[in-house]
Amino acid sequence: MRKKHAGDLLVIGGSEQKESDEDRAILAYAAKQAGTQGHILLLTVASSEPEAMEETYRAAFGRLGANRLEVLDIRTREQAYDPANLQKVEEAAVMFFTGGDQLRITSQIGGSPLLERILALHKSGTAIVGTSAGAAAMSETMLIGGPTNKSCLATLAMAPGLGLLEGVVVDSHFAERGRFGRLMGAVAQNPHNLGIGIDEDTAIHVTNDEEFVVLGSGAVYVIDGSTIRYTNLSDRQKAERIFTIHDARVHVLGRDDRFSLTERRPIAPPKIVQ
Amino acid sequence: MRKKHAGDLLVIGGSEQKESDEDRAILAYAAKQAGTQGHILLLTVASSEPEAMEETYRAAFGRLGANRLEVLDIRTREQAYDPANLQKVEEAAVMFFTGGDQLRITSQIGGSPLLERILALHKSGTAIVGTSAGAAAMSETMLIGGPTNKSCLATLAMAPGLGLLEGVVVDSHFAERGRFGRLMGAVAQNPHNLGIGIDEDTAIHVTNDEEFVVLGSGAVYVIDGSTIRYTNLSDRQKAERIFTIHDARVHVLGRDDRFSLTERRPIAPPKIVQ
Repeated sequence: MRKKHAGDLLVIGGSEQKESDEDRAILAYAAKQAGTQGHILLLTVASSEPEAMEETYRAAFGRLGANRLEVLDIRTREQAYDPANLQKVEEAAVMFFTGGDQLRITSQIGGSPLLERILALHKSGTAIVGTSAGAAAMSETMLIGGPTNKSCLATLAMAPGLGLLEGVVVDSHFAERGRFGRLMGAVAQNPHNLGIGIDEDTAIHVTNDEEFVVLGSGAVYVIDGSTIRYTNLSDRQKAERIFTIHDARVHVLGRDDRFSLTERRPIAPPKIVQ
Repeated sequence: MRKKHAGDLLVIGGSEQKESDEDRAILAYAAKQAGTQGHILLLTVASSEPEAMEETYRAAFGRLGANRLEVLDIRTREQAYDPANLQKVEEAAVMFFTGGDQLRITSQIGGSPLLERILALHKSGTAIVGTSAGAAAMSETMLIGGPTNKSCLATLAMAPGLGLLEGVVVDSHFAERGRFGRLMGAVAQNPHNLGIGIDEDTAIHVTNDEEFVVLGSGAVYVIDGSTIRYTNLSDRQKAERIFTIHDARVHVLGRDDRFSLTERRPIAPPKIVQ
């Protein structure tokens, strides 16, 4: 069962366009969510360089006319218990998780009153955005390692994520870092999870946990492992060998394409073009 | 219909191990095909540096104890009509196409008496090996361009290949150069072709055009487009947009895994391990 969150979720594959001479559909969406009344709260918890992150996004949102940006810079678990910080999330129209290291996000705010409050606010309507590590942390199970531009030779390190998206594993920088092999491996480890690989400057906009639409310039790959008829993944004698996987189902989606998370199927476009 | 070739075919994804402290299963296979009586004929036609290629393979096969290496260095179409060169292929036990540029192979020897003779010899038993560009040229339709570490935004350049493998498109350096997106695009352009993406230091050993077994350290990805239910590829209004593809079937195969080219299905392993 998928939890119901009333707030929108924007999951970005990283490196979204920030310059004014580019198509900035993704950040423009985040800015629009904040509207003229609300502000964006930038959560830099994933990053080891929170000041640089703040500078980057303050400039990028400024260029989009969204000047109301606050920053929540969590560096210790203690800060995730501080009432002043809980108040900060209370007032945000959009909570924006930057890139960095997804384990930093979960280890610093997992199980804290701050995360509890973030989840409750999201349930009652506050939009959440996550890019790169912030995207990976959205799912219930998150990938924390695995090969780049290499096929999958060993079981992958996974860890519990923030749980905003159930039944999926998200991978970012997807085509750019050649991550098909590792997401395929992650899905084969437990085909309960749908694999969602998001290219750079590309995002999925999830509404009501029910469906998503693709934004941005790249592709979104969905790997459905429910059709897998054979894998040797659990055969210990095959350690350090390529995982054999038969019959995975793969969808490639571009801008404006829709996907039903409840049906686990792409939503047919209004006009079938053959 | 698949043509019947009696000779074996070894299609290598490039960068096969050549040093003696590595597992050289792929070159060892080629050396074994030549046996103690026959010699390997190195065809450097794809390469702009045929002398360097010769040096590399002479050393590599020497380390494997296969010292009988001849070279056929075709640089002009004229040479593909020279009876002396036709005699060279006649005497070879194994014909080995090096890497380089696949268009060089087809433009220099396509439609020539040399290629005709190579195909006839293969039909009557001579093994053919191709690596990298030499692998790409094996199929009837070959990929000659397309993005690396990027999703597929436009139709891909394809050209007729040597036709040793029908009904497939081969891509090499597969995981290493993040080529999933482009092979998926190539398959969607005409799902008649099965997409076969071969990692570096990995090969498929094709027997009788009927099946192949995987050799080497990486993975082989098979993309079956016959299950595709929707693509917007031919919708001209979508030019410069990501190709939407629904329901492609993907198999990942490792060392010793077998695949039936006639059934277009992986061959179940002898023991099912779940």
